Amino acid sequence: MKVGILGTGMVGQTIGNALAAQGHLVMLGSRQAGKAEAVAWARSAGVNARQGSFADAAAFGELIFNCTKGDAAVAAITAAGPVNLAGKALVDVSNPLDFSKGMPPSLFVGNTDSLAEQVQRAAPQAKVVKALNTLNCYLMVDPSKLAGDHDLFICGDDADAKAQVQGLLTGAFGWKPAQIRDLGPLSGARATEALLPLWIRLFGSLGHANFNFHMNIGPAPKD
Amino acid sequence: MKVGILGTGMVGQTIGNALAAQGHLVMLGSRQAGKAEAVAWARSAGVNARQGSFADAAAFGELIFNCTKGDAAVAAITAAGPVNLAGKALVDVSNPLDFSKGMPPSLFVGNTDSLAEQVQRAAPQAKVVKALNTLNCYLMVDPSKLAGDHDLFICGDDADAKAQVQGLLTGAFGWKPAQIRDLGPLSGARATEALLPLWIRLFGSLGHANFNFHMNIGPAPKD
Repeated sequence: MKVGILGTGMVGQTIGNALAAQGHLVMLGSRQAGKAEAVAWARSAGVNARQGSFADAAAFGELIFNCTKGDAAVAAITAAGPVNLAGKALVDVSNPLDFSKGMPPSLFVGNTDSLAEQVQRAAPQAKVVKALNTLNCYLMVDPSKLAGDHDLFICGDDADAKAQVQGLLTGAFGWKPAQIRDLGPLSGARATEALLPLWIRLFGSLGHANFNFHMNIGPAPKD
Repeated sequence: MKVGILGTGMVGQTIGNALAAQGHLVMLGSRQAGKAEAVAWARSAGVNARQGSFADAAAFGELIFNCTKGDAAVAAITAAGPVNLAGKALVDVSNPLDFSKGMPPSLFVGNTDSLAEQVQRAAPQAKVVKALNTLNCYLMVDPSKLAGDHDLFICGDDADAKAQVQGLLTGAFGWKPAQIRDLGPLSGARATEALLPLWIRLFGSLGHANFNFHMNIGPAPKD
């Protein structure tokens, strides 16, 4: 599959590497084509990898990942071009972290709205799926690196797009269907983006990112 | 130990029952002494149980639980009397749920503040410890009812009060020390109160409350 990735940071590169290694054709997009990090990545990631602008990556991909920093996400979507994203599954991995007030960061949107919903409003015809935003990128693309039970949350308004994304998560990254917890409509991103404050505090106290959330769900009680 | 519980709903009664059954002396407090639910509870819960006003319960307890509804918490603390709470560990179990905009509820405080911090400001000399707010009350007092790993988050600015509360959690309710995750200062409540949107969505989709969060934490990666 052709995949466009918005964002050339560690998350975008890690997802790009994993997809290119699986034979998918990947274009990493940044504000301007030819960005040094993206060129270096495309050179190192092999024949399946290329780079371009946000709009190039959006037009190239049949499925898109948004891996930009949260405060740049809506601008990146706008630059990518809503028309280039129309009808496509758009996996929003970004988080609305606001580092301007010091550590730990706060969230610049939440509670009654989410960054995923802002992204959806910026590209109304895209099929936004929120996923992968609650764990470190090296676990995103290889969940087997963390032993024991842990979960991936997914939500979105378009059932077909969610199914397509789940297929990629299981097929390319090795998530087991039982690990993928569907929270329903895209407004579920309000709940998963709200996990970041806890994630960041644990990251700060542990000093590493080799951890993830798990919902321990027992049987319905008899009463 | 003498324990005062603010709030006569299911959470307060469940915690009160568990403590009274363990031989603690428990007073359930409400806006006015003699509230029918509290009188009925005190009658059914045995010789260790009594009821009174918020101020009565605060004065009675050597340790206090705030089990009021979130939107009534600060008023309850004020009615309890900061002087009655001074120097005591005050376990804040409440959550800032706002049901006024429909389901699922939003939070009326969060991100850069928390209900626990509001409670602390209302009773500056109390030693507020946030705990037990991320799971159903029947698991709060008997975590063994859910098989497998699951966690209890705790935070607060006073180390002695946290230690006292942890002692009660392990001694009276059966939490294992390894299940109790200390998030540091009371501002950690911003992170744990923010788990409620996910909890509520899961409760809605599962149709029961027999579940809890678990942080799956692996070893620090070697790199």
